[in-house]
Parts: sequence; structure tokens; C-alpha cells
Amino acid sequence: MPADCFAATVTYDGTAFAGSQIQPNARTVQEELERAAAVLFGVPTRVALAGRTDSGVHARGQVAAFTAETRHDAATVRKALNANLPEDVAVRAVRAVPADFDPRRWARRRWYRYTIATGEARDPLTRRSAWFIGGDLDVGAMQDAAGELAGKRDFIACSGPLEPGRSSVRTVFAAGWRSEGCTLLFDIEADAFLPQMVRRITGELVRVGRHATKVEEFVRLLGQAQPGSMAYVAPAHGLCLERVWYDEGYVA
Amino acid sequence: MPADCFAATVTYDGTAFAGSQIQPNARTVQEELERAAAVLFGVPTRVALAGRTDSGVHARGQVAAFTAETRHDAATVRKALNANLPEDVAVRAVRAVPADFDPRRWARRRWYRYTIATGEARDPLTRRSAWFIGGDLDVGAMQDAAGELAGKRDFIACSGPLEPGRSSVRTVFAAGWRSEGCTLLFDIEADAFLPQMVRRITGELVRVGRHATKVEEFVRLLGQAQPGSMAYVAPAHGLCLERVWYDEGYVA
Repeated sequence: MPADCFAATVTYDGTAFAGSQIQPNARTVQEELERAAAVLFGVPTRVALAGRTDSGVHARGQVAAFTAETRHDAATVRKALNANLPEDVAVRAVRAVPADFDPRRWARRRWYRYTIATGEARDPLTRRSAWFIGGDLDVGAMQDAAGELAGKRDFIACSGPLEPGRSSVRTVFAAGWRSEGCTLLFDIEADAFLPQMVRRITGELVRVGRHATKVEEFVRLLGQAQPGSMAYVAPAHGLCLERVWYDEGYVA
Repeated sequence: MPADCFAATVTYDGTAFAGSQIQPNARTVQEELERAAAVLFGVPTRVALAGRTDSGVHARGQVAAFTAETRHDAATVRKALNANLPEDVAVRAVRAVPADFDPRRWARRRWYRYTIATGEARDPLTRRSAWFIGGDLDVGAMQDAAGELAGKRDFIACSGPLEPGRSSVRTVFAAGWRSEGCTLLFDIEADAFLPQMVRRITGELVRVGRHATKVEEFVRLLGQAQPGSMAYVAPAHGLCLERVWYDEGYVA
């Protein structure tokens, strides 16, 4: 039986995960996916992910790829994986992909959303998926600063620790804030992201919104060559990997 | 110091509560509110609620009333209560009300929302707040059946166990379904609700949507004099008490 390669769109509640990538003595999304795949296919199965998400970060559109010898079609693989996965992770869709599909390298565009809950009191119903910020935020100033992010540049200033020798040049396609009642949404799309990049950008944008710093200072920090110059890291639980795009014809 | 009476708008995640009303050996919303109020006011404080919610049911707009001798204004009481409450319950607003205010008897209108998640796979991010239903639902038929609910009548057929001698006549002002992407929302407003009324109505409406029963049968069941004739009880975690209205001038 020939081996087939599949790409799965994965949703998870990051609250009880130590991030997406396998690591010793910690519960990870990759480990749960590999466990479910091993049960389904009867052999150890390696699962590769499009993006690394930190401990506590959620996903509605993480992409996971794996190869298996199976008679099942993609829809059956999806159902069987979901039957073997715990309640905080699920596979939304499965598609057949070329044998050399690499979910990280082949990704063309990624969309992250950061959710902030505002208002006079914390909201128990969104406490796992939104950063609660009491008091007023100057959304206009936050939007002005976010407008400075688009374009191709070295984003090392908003990166956490990076492996030596890796480029920190990225292209941000779009970044902006939107209000929905008491909820503030920050959407940012780029070809790829550096570690903690969205959380550091969000943390600094919130400082702009609180008038703890100015738009000009945000722009100055963005140009720094020192890793982590943007030092305020927004909490993980407000962040969600919404979607990953590939060249047309591979993954919808 | 004279005693002041306050009404609080309360939000809670019902997941870890055995319902709203105090009961022995179980964690309840009322108990947490009374504990927080006792810490704030320094004396045992009785808290009365507008509506009883079952174990697992959420609220965005429960109303709680209490009387206290305090120098604090309503905004300060809100902040201090929130500081003493656990993360799954919070007070959104506090207002001064007349000394004889009764949050249950004075309520004129209550709004409950039932949330259903549809789609091909369960969604880990909404698993605590929506009932996941795979497969197709005939929303048109569900809406036709919901349209039969409005009006004043004996709703005993969709009631759980009721105290003897209590009237089961209620007035439903409005009831209907709305789609938002993969989410189905059932909103129902009435002067008051019977035990399990929204969950039994929702359970039967979902049977209509699955073509397990017909709109005519839904209407026939609604007219039954036997308590619990609507026997399919939708799970608690999809239900939320959204709001309670009072006569103008008492509670906004």
C-alpha cells in the first residue's frame, strides 16, 4: 500500500498545553496528535506543524502534516483522529497533499489574532481566551502604531530568543485593531513570525493605548537591532493562530 | 449607619458550579457571592438571585441583591466584590435599589440564549459554552416550531419537577433562531421560566431540526398537561442567562 501524505487543520484550546511542539515531561499538541495518529494507523507517526505556538496560545487554524499507509480517505481520517483526541484539540479538516509537503516551509502567509477584553470588570466567560484590561485604551493611537508594522524588515526588536544564524527578516502584510463591543481584536498577517513576535508587539501597542509610551517610541523600538527591545510580552492566553495559507491547490 | 440595598449584575462560567442556589456540599454562585459580601461588609450577608440556573448553566446578566451597612458607593462595592470573588464569577455592575427590592419577584422579563456549535468537527474553543451537534439541522423547521412559542399559556409540558401548587403559566414574548457562521443561537424572552424550560424546548427543537420529529408534534407536545412531556433536555453548558429587566428606574 503506498503512503499518503495528509494536511490537517487543527483547533486547540492552549490552556492546558505546554505549547505546540513536543518536549519532555510536558503535555503538547504535537504529542497528542502523534498519539492519535499512532492509534489510527497502528504505527508510530511523526506529525509536523506549520507554526510553533507557546504554552497557553490557542489555534483555530494550525496546520499539521503526516504520512501514513492507509486505505481511509481524508474525511475518514479526520473523524478517526477526532475520536482519538482529547477534548481540547480537534481536527477540523483533512486534505491529501503532495508527498514532499512541509507545513512550515510551504506556508506563504499566517494570520494571528490577539483578543483583549475591556470594560469595568473582568469577564469569567472569556477569561481563557482574552486578556482583560480595565480602564481606557486609546485605540486610535494603537491603530496609528499598528499602521507602522506593514512591510518587509528586520523584526529582531520584537523577537524572543532566536536560534543563532536564523534570519529575523519578515514581511508583515497587514496589522490592525478592530472593536466589537467590549472586545478589541488585533489581527496581524505575515509570511512568518518570530518567537513571541505577536505578543511583544501587542504588549507594546497596549502601552501606547495606555499612554505609557508614544507612537514615535513604538516606531523607534521597532527599528532597534537588539533582540527583545520590545520588552512587554502580552499574556499567551489572548493569542490565537487563526489560519495558515499555502500556494493554491495544496491546502484550502 | 443606615442599610443600603444593592443590585449587582453578575457574570459566571457555570462549568464548575452546581448551579446558582445555595445547597449543602456543593459549590454554588450564591455561596461565592455571599462569601465575598461577608468579607467586604464584615458580617454574614444574604444574597438573593433573580433566576435559578442549573448546574453548568452560565450567566452574563444574573441579578443579585443584598443589603449592607456601608459607606462605600456602588462602584466601590463592585470593585471590592470582584477582588473577593473567584475567577469564574464577576460583578459587572452594582446599583442602589429600593429597600424592598426583590430580584426575582420584581423581574419583568428574562432573556436566555442557547448556543449550538455545528460543523464537521467539535470545536475545543467553544466546548464549555456551546452544544456541539454534527450533521445537518433544518433551521427553517426549527424556526417554524419556535414561532409557536410566543404567547401566554401553561408551559407545564416543558417543565422539569415543579413545587406543588405553583402556577406554570408563563408569557413568552419572543423566541427564535439565528445563524452566525457555524454557530446557531436560540434566543427566548419571557416574563419568567419554569425549571429546565429552555433546555427542554431546545432539546425538542433540535429533534425537529434533525427531522426526528415534526413541527406539528412539537405543537402537540407543547399543549400537553403532563409535566416534562418534552422529554429531551438539551445539555446545560449551552445555556446562558443573558439579561433580566425590571421596571424602569430600578435596574438598568
